[in-house]
Amino acid sequence: MQLIVAKKAGFCFGVKRAIDITFDLAKETNEGIYTYGPLIHNPQVIEKLIREGVNPIGDIHCIDIKTLIIRTHGVSPEVYAETSRMDYKLVDATCPFVKKAQHFAKTLSDEGYQVLIVGDREHPEVQGLIGFAGKDVITVNNVEPLPVLKRKVGIIVQTTQPFETFEKVVLKVIGSAREVKIYNTICDYTVLRIKETKEIAHKADLMVVIGGKNSANTTQLVNISRQSCANVHHIEISDEIRKEWFNGSRKIGITGGASTPQWIIDEVVKKIREISLRR
Amino acid sequence: MQLIVAKKAGFCFGVKRAIDITFDLAKETNEGIYTYGPLIHNPQVIEKLIREGVNPIGDIHCIDIKTLIIRTHGVSPEVYAETSRMDYKLVDATCPFVKKAQHFAKTLSDEGYQVLIVGDREHPEVQGLIGFAGKDVITVNNVEPLPVLKRKVGIIVQTTQPFETFEKVVLKVIGSAREVKIYNTICDYTVLRIKETKEIAHKADLMVVIGGKNSANTTQLVNISRQSCANVHHIEISDEIRKEWFNGSRKIGITGGASTPQWIIDEVVKKIREISLRR
Repeated sequence: MQLIVAKKAGFCFGVKRAIDITFDLAKETNEGIYTYGPLIHNPQVIEKLIREGVNPIGDIHCIDIKTLIIRTHGVSPEVYAETSRMDYKLVDATCPFVKKAQHFAKTLSDEGYQVLIVGDREHPEVQGLIGFAGKDVITVNNVEPLPVLKRKVGIIVQTTQPFETFEKVVLKVIGSAREVKIYNTICDYTVLRIKETKEIAHKADLMVVIGGKNSANTTQLVNISRQSCANVHHIEISDEIRKEWFNGSRKIGITGGASTPQWIIDEVVKKIREISLRR
Repeated sequence: MQLIVAKKAGFCFGVKRAIDITFDLAKETNEGIYTYGPLIHNPQVIEKLIREGVNPIGDIHCIDIKTLIIRTHGVSPEVYAETSRMDYKLVDATCPFVKKAQHFAKTLSDEGYQVLIVGDREHPEVQGLIGFAGKDVITVNNVEPLPVLKRKVGIIVQTTQPFETFEKVVLKVIGSAREVKIYNTICDYTVLRIKETKEIAHKADLMVVIGGKNSANTTQLVNISRQSCANVHHIEISDEIRKEWFNGSRKIGITGGASTPQWIIDEVVKKIREISLRR
């Protein structure tokens, strides 16, 4: 049994940065540190943070807050405005690539474009971007038909979307609007991670994708793997692995999302190696 | 034998406008009226104009010129500058849609974009556009690979290009540049003419495409017809028609380019009807 482990699996630049900021803060003090929503979409990391005294919170007005950390996905300008009125310290751990996309959303809106965000409307990153994109903003995913567009349309894209989705929406828009300004805000980590996952899934007869069940980018890797591999398992931790999965498999691909910590990937690889050796 | 004649065949808005301007001028006087290059890409119309005393000329410095007409395809700012120094009247018959594309080329260049023109580099419209597009300008047709692009790319398209070519180039560019501003400058007449030709060629077992052998948009209709019809003839005038072509044909499609005059289309339809009746 051969194992192919993705080199790009695990923390991306933005997630690593947010984790470092948060653990550094927790080392200084463990009094009243909160993240606005879960810092990243990985339950195991969130548990670790909670053990360090850092809790996710949904209400930015809570009187217990001494330090509020804005998570990787960012927030809308309204949330910034609201927190600036509060009597606590704000630490911004928004991914710098998301910050850039927020900046472009505002630029497009200021220049009179109807802003179209390619991505998942419910995802916190997109919710934040919507706040920067002015009143005409629309969001489109890869299956929805386009609404009626204005003459000038500006496009940005959720940083973790696959290029194919972006491409599909751009094609629809240029067939409809006369002036289109596009910022490709897909982050390079997303491109590389998807590319590598595709390559591995193409070779493997079984894929194990590690990451939060609530992680959009991990779920995407699952879907991408399924396009060329019939046997795909999405797990959060090594305990979920069943040795029966590997009966008859010769090449096992292992990949993980941008919010999957290295220690979980290591545990998974170790467990699969053990199963392989016992054969 | 059934005839399907395209409703959109023949003079488009820009060509009709240029022809009207020129014949009106020729009515006033026939002294020293010249067009800078052939007014439109149709030899039969150009012959008519010559009979009215309007000749194409390649040298804008010729001392015989009293009135110089800029043709539908437009010219570069350098030509405008040069003619402004001359002692004759300038009449601008540039198609208003080409004018718009020229304006967008300049806008993009002024805003710091590397201007990419989708179209045929040798075509006079594109030659004119290049002049408005600044020093970084590049032109790309539907088969060429993209050169290395700058970070900010602005796209315009020759008004008579098929949407599919535009689409293909846009897809390549958004995979490479980070910021892309696009003006879809394909004119509505082009879209409708291509659409109708496709529909007719799909039904017909023989297509007759009428227009100048030097007309890019007519040649395009020939290529588009060949995609779904095995039997396609490109003619300029009815004399070229051979009755053997129609042996065994039941549905004849007839279309024509944007610079094909109605009287030629009428003659062709008449001749084919006669052949059909003699069966």
